[in-house]
Amino acid sequence: MAGETEIRELTVELGERSYPIRIGTGLLERAGSLFEECGFPKKSPILLVADESVVGLYAGKLERSLKDAGYSVATAVVPSGEQSKSLAQFNDLITEALEAGLDRRSTVVALGGGVVGDLAGFVAAAYMRGVRFVQVPTTILAHDSSVGGKVAVNHKLAKNIIGAFHQPEFVLYDLNTLKSLPPREIRSGFAEVVKHGLIWDAEFTSWCDRNSDKLLALDDEALGHALYEGCRVKSIVVSRDERENDLRAILNLGHTIGHALEAVGSYNQLLHGEAISIGMVGAARLAAKFGYGEELASETERLLRKFELPVRIPAGYDTDAIMSAMQHDKKFTEGAMVFVVPKRIGEVEIRGDVQAAWVRDIVEQLKGETG
Amino acid sequence: MAGETEIRELTVELGERSYPIRIGTGLLERAGSLFEECGFPKKSPILLVADESVVGLYAGKLERSLKDAGYSVATAVVPSGEQSKSLAQFNDLITEALEAGLDRRSTVVALGGGVVGDLAGFVAAAYMRGVRFVQVPTTILAHDSSVGGKVAVNHKLAKNIIGAFHQPEFVLYDLNTLKSLPPREIRSGFAEVVKHGLIWDAEFTSWCDRNSDKLLALDDEALGHALYEGCRVKSIVVSRDERENDLRAILNLGHTIGHALEAVGSYNQLLHGEAISIGMVGAARLAAKFGYGEELASETERLLRKFELPVRIPAGYDTDAIMSAMQHDKKFTEGAMVFVVPKRIGEVEIRGDVQAAWVRDIVEQLKGETG
Repeated sequence: MAGETEIRELTVELGERSYPIRIGTGLLERAGSLFEECGFPKKSPILLVADESVVGLYAGKLERSLKDAGYSVATAVVPSGEQSKSLAQFNDLITEALEAGLDRRSTVVALGGGVVGDLAGFVAAAYMRGVRFVQVPTTILAHDSSVGGKVAVNHKLAKNIIGAFHQPEFVLYDLNTLKSLPPREIRSGFAEVVKHGLIWDAEFTSWCDRNSDKLLALDDEALGHALYEGCRVKSIVVSRDERENDLRAILNLGHTIGHALEAVGSYNQLLHGEAISIGMVGAARLAAKFGYGEELASETERLLRKFELPVRIPAGYDTDAIMSAMQHDKKFTEGAMVFVVPKRIGEVEIRGDVQAAWVRDIVEQLKGETG
Repeated sequence: MAGETEIRELTVELGERSYPIRIGTGLLERAGSLFEECGFPKKSPILLVADESVVGLYAGKLERSLKDAGYSVATAVVPSGEQSKSLAQFNDLITEALEAGLDRRSTVVALGGGVVGDLAGFVAAAYMRGVRFVQVPTTILAHDSSVGGKVAVNHKLAKNIIGAFHQPEFVLYDLNTLKSLPPREIRSGFAEVVKHGLIWDAEFTSWCDRNSDKLLALDDEALGHALYEGCRVKSIVVSRDERENDLRAILNLGHTIGHALEAVGSYNQLLHGEAISIGMVGAARLAAKFGYGEELASETERLLRKFELPVRIPAGYDTDAIMSAMQHDKKFTEGAMVFVVPKRIGEVEIRGDVQAAWVRDIVEQLKGETG
């Protein structure tokens, strides 16, 4: 068993739906006792939904821990990739849940990245109108998606359009599971870490800048700190605005353009972090339109490049297709074009007066310039 | 325009999710002004989901009222029948919502019976993680399903297994829309009316007994009273237990056997009210096992027969298939067999100690006896 480092813990404050996030090493092995402590009934089967890329590595360990504690566990494996966030895959998991005999006191556990978390979370939200949910993220990116209770699947016309707010009972973040990530996934994950700095915390942004090498090398201490800080920013924002009435929208920095790029690439060309990396550069370029410093765009770009993230739209992406995908994005309320725009490092604002022509220009720029 | 009778109004008390139910004639024509009064924004399109059996009769009237008030309305038509409560139909409606440009401030309106209410309600619950919902029930049965916020679609292995709790903003019950119901639907609807008496209110049960002729003839005054009382019982129960932790389960009187019969009949043989009518007779027969009066079963049967409802399981229904369908029913917590059992007229209790063998015997009896 790997050596154990400090366990960091923070609470997402949501009244009676508050829940803890635990970050550290060796947590998979303790899952069973945690389920017991939380009073999950042993008669009610657990459905473990695992991403196929991690099932061989970690599902056995997690299952064993739960079974040793006296739980019955059915494991469902879902293919890696955004394509699994479909109603068809959702329906298959409902079938598995029924066949495993899950009842209203059962728990659905997500083992994997954001795709599995969103998908299994929507299963937990909708199965029998809602059962318990536990997140066991195995990617860096999932430090974002595993906090805040947003769960969803995609529709062919728009991402995350079918979903719910369904908070987990807790989040178990075992740093050991991150060691198996492919380098491209690691870099993609840091896009959301950087985002949390950019929207809320200039000091943390600067710390990321100074520690990019350690982070890319997955140094346990640096990684634990970065994930803790990322989750902390996310949880503060979510605590203040659970259902995205206002503040929570700042978490969408880079996501308006980013989601459109993912859609145009059929969700299989750009990773989520890569898409929002490009989107954050686009949003930073909008800042100048509102009189904020022009250096914001270059600073944002420099930081993202340190994490070896893309900052230009790949060749062959059609501008009209990108603009059209944005029209279906749910961040447009009442047809107005809404964007999260940086004011300075560590602070953003939500602007409802962004002209489509500006966005089109920036999309063209980001396509034309060589990255 | 038809003559207008008294408008009855009651409130479902759910804190900040409280909402009114209005029952009367001529309400369709006033929908637009109601939307305005409630502050629904005019820039956000409305999706009207209408059952094909009523679209020609009432959708135009409702649409006109909304459009006259300045709203844009897209109408989606869904085929009549339980088969429409599918993920496929749900997905089609999400497509319609996207194509009509619905945003987070939009409203989904259900015009039809319980099928459309459950289906459109789940669309409202899941679209962009939840938008406004308004129920315009056009069946008697829907007095039950339109109150309480339970929305769902079916899975091939179990009914209502995929859903949410999503309360409407209000319910508009226009008695004029009930005049077009086929006689079989009318009778089926009264099964839930009778149920609300049986579980909660001996006096109302006796009133139903005395007024069955008027009700079957759709007398406006009698109908208004019956729907008001039915909604009142339902809303009291729901107010005390929104998410079915305990009390709310009493609403399932007759539903455990009823749902199984619907499933075995592939949801196209027995109407919901017919199935629970048989189920209520089954539940009443269980009462004797717990020492409650044997006359409960005969009284229940007599009352349901007055409404010309079936009280026997149709020939050809397989006992094993019925028992197996009950195992998947979500009212079985942790594998125990749970039933709502009448104690006397107007009072029931939830029993967790019902033996499968008793249920099997009763199913056999209800098949064997001539109705």
